[in-house]
Formats: sequence, structure tokens, C-alpha cells
Amino acid sequence: MREHIFSGWRESSRAFGFSQYDGPPLEPLELYKKKSGDEIIGQLYNFTDKGGREVALRPELTPTFARLAGARHRDYKKPLKWFAIPQLFRYERAQRGRLREHFQWNGDIVGEPSLSAEAEILAMIDHALRGLGLTREDYVIRVSDRQFWLDFLAKHNVTDSGKIYDFLQVLDKIERTPEEVSREKLGSLSAEVFALLNGGADSRRLDTLLAACASLGLSDAVQVDLRIVRGLAYYTGVVFEVHDRGGKFRAIAGGGRYDNLLQLIADIDLPAVGFGMGDVVIGEILKDKNLAPKTADGDSYYLVIADETLRPRALALASALRDGGYRVDYPLSAAKVGRQFQAAEERGHRYALFIGQEYADSGVCGLKTLATREQVNVKPLIVGGKVTALADG
Amino acid sequence: MREHIFSGWRESSRAFGFSQYDGPPLEPLELYKKKSGDEIIGQLYNFTDKGGREVALRPELTPTFARLAGARHRDYKKPLKWFAIPQLFRYERAQRGRLREHFQWNGDIVGEPSLSAEAEILAMIDHALRGLGLTREDYVIRVSDRQFWLDFLAKHNVTDSGKIYDFLQVLDKIERTPEEVSREKLGSLSAEVFALLNGGADSRRLDTLLAACASLGLSDAVQVDLRIVRGLAYYTGVVFEVHDRGGKFRAIAGGGRYDNLLQLIADIDLPAVGFGMGDVVIGEILKDKNLAPKTADGDSYYLVIADETLRPRALALASALRDGGYRVDYPLSAAKVGRQFQAAEERGHRYALFIGQEYADSGVCGLKTLATREQVNVKPLIVGGKVTALADG
Repeated sequence: MREHIFSGWRESSRAFGFSQYDGPPLEPLELYKKKSGDEIIGQLYNFTDKGGREVALRPELTPTFARLAGARHRDYKKPLKWFAIPQLFRYERAQRGRLREHFQWNGDIVGEPSLSAEAEILAMIDHALRGLGLTREDYVIRVSDRQFWLDFLAKHNVTDSGKIYDFLQVLDKIERTPEEVSREKLGSLSAEVFALLNGGADSRRLDTLLAACASLGLSDAVQVDLRIVRGLAYYTGVVFEVHDRGGKFRAIAGGGRYDNLLQLIADIDLPAVGFGMGDVVIGEILKDKNLAPKTADGDSYYLVIADETLRPRALALASALRDGGYRVDYPLSAAKVGRQFQAAEERGHRYALFIGQEYADSGVCGLKTLATREQVNVKPLIVGGKVTALADG
Repeated sequence: MREHIFSGWRESSRAFGFSQYDGPPLEPLELYKKKSGDEIIGQLYNFTDKGGREVALRPELTPTFARLAGARHRDYKKPLKWFAIPQLFRYERAQRGRLREHFQWNGDIVGEPSLSAEAEILAMIDHALRGLGLTREDYVIRVSDRQFWLDFLAKHNVTDSGKIYDFLQVLDKIERTPEEVSREKLGSLSAEVFALLNGGADSRRLDTLLAACASLGLSDAVQVDLRIVRGLAYYTGVVFEVHDRGGKFRAIAGGGRYDNLLQLIADIDLPAVGFGMGDVVIGEILKDKNLAPKTADGDSYYLVIADETLRPRALALASALRDGGYRVDYPLSAAKVGRQFQAAEERGHRYALFIGQEYADSGVCGLKTLATREQVNVKPLIVGGKVTALADG
């Protein structure tokens, strides 16, 4: 399942012209403190290594990405479009400090100030989800504008960073909080905030984004929802989350614009937009929708060897099939024919290819589609050592 | 490059009916001590974690594999054919205790006592190397029989495990050691050992393996070389290494049969054969042979947008192309046409697709092959929102 998801992610990344990069799983603890402050340490799997260095297994790739982009951005034309599928780590307090790990698809565009970058990222996420078999009736991309709220607060003379943070936290939790509790916390701003949430905001950024999304054919996938603010402090503009429409699962993906982070981490002034999609939630949803891949093997063939004198012929055919791009397995030791057909099914192969005396005599073998029990005779055409087709036999 | 290599490894694994698995990058230190003894610790990136546990970043996947196979083997039909592409870690003493990391392709067959398993593994390695563009003139698979030497020593009443280890070490280093030094170390056995190395050994195992390799079309890839013993102590039968024929690089891959390790680690009595191929040496060889992929993108398209009024049309086309399986990039903000063609080349795209007024009027755009400057008119055929072909325009 994991490889199935990775494969979809990679394919969409390539379809959108993103290049793959990778970074070290272990980083100096300082890198995460610099981005997120000391309070992050409780969630990190950090330790002192043999050389006395304070290090942590990466909980996210963004700081690594920012450092790499800062170090190498002069070697590439902007905008950079980079993706990665890193393994990420958290300290699991509940399970007595165990390591919790998962994989995440990360995509980032660096050096593009316009909302075309956000639209491109959203289109890629949508492409990947559809590629994995979901439809837009299954998920929705909720877009919001964090800067809209910062402007709103500034207009109301809320400039204290602690108060701004508290306000964003109330919005972040508003969906799961009784309205009266949120209203109380919002105080004098509550009437206006609820009016904006219900009536929609006047955000030129969101208007521009929605227009680009419409051109990209995303209109029925994207929806404005100003409650989305994203927990982390570094976003500076549009933020978004992808959710299942049924609301059964946690967020499928999330991200946004972070125009200041590269300055903070790598001392370069470049705007950036990025997202992360974990393998866990999407895996749960695919299972729930019965979209998990049935077998790991797809269209694959199991050679049934009628008797051991035919094994050399069968092995040669296996090689020629594999060199021709076929996926092939066969019994490694002698087994009764019935057992071999059974093995073919148990291992999830689509076809059994029966190698009997007729194959030795005239190159014809029996091809059985295991699901339907349908059987036909085929003749493998071998050109330059490779099977180029299984012709009618 | 790394992804290019991984992709080749995955494709060969699937062609041979191997299923992918994964394990945790962090394991209890005990697991490695159990397999390799206390002396392994100097090479490990180990530490005490927040919960007070002694752990290590995995230096190899085999102990993890053995544990997983032991825990889950009842859920699968034997033989198991499993592969993984783990990231592995070593403690780098030379660089003041830094972490050294690389990736490795691991493939193992569990539950097959016959030499068919070894042959299958060798055929898969050969398939992958050819898939990456190498030929059998570039590499050779050297096979040996560790058990042959153990039997040889037993016949000469060498049964002390320290002496056996020393003997295998002499063989392991014999290629890089002056003959007189090796002869002295081998003492009374030296004449016979050198005769065997030069004259070939009488090993039924190797004869059977070579016959299976011949059926699989591997004869010109495989060569018996009794000097191969593999350093690690757990191999019990056939061992092998893959080398570049020029001898310029370290071993490309290595492995062998380890029929006792699952007993030791997981307390199950199942025979096994496995190998590992790192990403570093093969990467060096592909670069050396100029077989590195030219661009990460392959056949990809860069849309050149003649003026900004056409951007919505261009974005819609980008979506339809991507949904049709094309790899597509385009300028995220307004740029002069000349700059856009330049960007298409700089980013390594194969084609530029010019979207001008003619596309708006009649659906025709210019397709330029960047390497040859050849230009033709094409008309994207859009069916169900997807481009199914670029027809002559």
C-alpha cells in the first residue's frame, strides 16, 4: 500500500515538473529550535550523539529544505519546484517515549511571489488524489488567507504577537468548539469574526487564487474556508488543508505560503509555498473506499512447470519474459502441478502460464486467467532474447 | 540519479515477483549485538534514547528482516520473496563521529533450500544492472561456496572457530595481499589452497548453481571465484559478489545463503538467501560509464505562453495534458517569449509547446523539439478532459 501511494506521489510530482531531492534524517537540534522555538523539543526524538552533538531525527522536512534551498538556490533557475518523500519522526510520549514514524510527500515552490504557485501546488495535490482513485466527491481542498486575518487584527489594533497567536488558535479550533466558548474567547471581535466566517471575506489573494484554480479545472475541488489557519507560526499568506468531505478522517494534506522562513533559516530572501501529505491518513481513506491495491504485483505471470525435465526451458522463458518487461514468478523447487496453480493464486498473480511438453515441442503454452479460469494457448514471440508478445498459439 | 537507480531496483524486483517491505530505521542495540557480537558497536550510530533505551540507527536491514520474517512468516506461503530499499547508517569515525548514510537494495528469499533461490537472486541482480544500462562486459558476478572451505578445513581437522575465521580472512584479502604473505599465513594448507584457487573446486553446490544460471541465460555473467568468502560470519553456503570487470570500484553487490540466521534471531528454522546492493558504487559506475540520466524529467513539455490573456487557456491545457499522462511545466508568472523558451531548455525539458492566438482560435499550437530546434504544429486531442494525443495540426 505504501509503495502504491509513493508511486502515485512520484508520478504526480513528475507530471508537474517537480524534481526530487533528499536530505539527512538527522539534523542539529538547533535547526528545529530556530524555526519553532524551544517548546518543539518535547515532540522531537532528540538525543546527544557519540560526538557530543545535540541532534534530532527530523520531525518535518521544511527546515532541511530551507537550508538546502538556501545553499543551492544559485545553481538553479527560479522558481525551484522540488519534492521529496521523507521518513519523519516524532517522540511518542503516550507509548513511553517510543519512536513514531511516518512518511510524507513534500512539495515546495521557491522564488515565485504570485498566487500561480499556490494554484500549481493545489492542482498537483488534486492530481495525486485522483491518481490514487479518489474523486472530488471524496475530498475538498479548503483554502484560507492567514494574511487576511493578520490585516483584520491590525485594523483592530491587535498587534501583540501573543494575542495574535491566541486569536489564530481560537480560529483553528472553532470547528470543534461550542460557539459560545469561541465567542467568549474572541470577545469584542466575535460578532465580526463570525460574520466573516459565514459571509466570506474580501480577499484579493483568494480571488486571484480561485481564478487560477478555475483555469486549472479545480473549481469543484476548492472551497474557501477562513477557519483554516494552520497551527505553525511561519505561514504568511494563503494556507490550505485537504479533508475528506465526510469529515471522518484527520486532514489529508496541508500547507501554505511561507515567505519569511528562508530568510530565517538560510538568510536568503525568497518567497515559498509548500505542502505536506502524510502516508497514514491517505492510506486509511484508500482502505475505507476500498481503493487499496489488490495485489502488489499487478499483471503478473506464474509459470507452472509440468515436470522437472522442463525446468531449464521454463527458466529460459522466465528470463526472456522478464527482459521483455513481464513480471514473472515460478516454483523454485519441484511441486505437483495442482500445487503450482494454487501457488499462482495465493501469490496474487493474474495469470498462470503452463509449460508442458507442447512448449518444448512447438513453443506453445497454456495461459490461464486465474480469476475467470479462462484458458487459451499462446506462443511467446522471442526477439533478441526478449518476449515481445504472447501470440495466439 | 538516486531515484533513477531506485526505480531500476523496484522494476527488477517486481519483474521477479518480489514484494516490498519496510522496517524501522531505529532498532534495539541488542539486535545487532546478537547477530554480530559486541565488536559491531564501534561501527554503529548508537545512542541512549529519551526513554533510556539502548538503540542504533540500522547499519543493515538483515536483522530487521529476520525478525519480521520470523514474526510474519506464517501469514505467507513459502518461499517468501521480499525486497526493500532502506536507508542505512554508520558511525563515521574519521569525520569526528558524523553519521554516514546510504541506501541499499535488499532482496531475500526465505524458505527455499535449493540452489534455485541463489540463481533467482543472481538473475535479478543481473536484470537490474542491465536495466540501468550496464552490460555483462562491465560487470561480473563472482560466486563461491563458503561451505566448501568449511568442509575443506574440517577434512584438515581445523575446527576451532577462531582459526576458521582467520582462514576465511586470509582468503578474503588474498587478492590484495602479496602471495608470500598469504602462503605464510596459510602455513601447511597453502599449497592445497592455491591449487584449489587456481584449479577450481569440486563443489556440487556450485555445479548445480551454474546449471541453473545457464538456464536463466546468465552463463557469461557468472564466474566461480573461491576467494569470495564475504566478511560477515553468518553465511552458510554459496556466497557471491558483483564487481566491475575493470576492478576500478568497490563491490557493486554481495550476498549469499544464511540458513542459520533466522534461527538465531527469530527462533525459526528456515533457510534463506539474500543480497545487498548499495546506491553509492553503482552510482559511481553509472557516472563513469556516462549512463547517468540526462534529466530527471524525461519526455516533458514546457508551455510557452505567448501573452498573459492566453494564460487561462494554457493552464487548462496543462491540466488536460497532465491528466493524459504528460509531464508539463509552464512559467508561473509573465515572462517574455524568448525567456520562456530559454527556461524550457534550462529546465531540461524535451519539448516546448507554444500557446499563441492560433491555439485560442483553432486549438493548434507549435511543438518545438528543443535539442533539434525542429518545429511542427500539433492539435491536442482532448477526450473527457484528458489529452489523448498531439495530432498533426
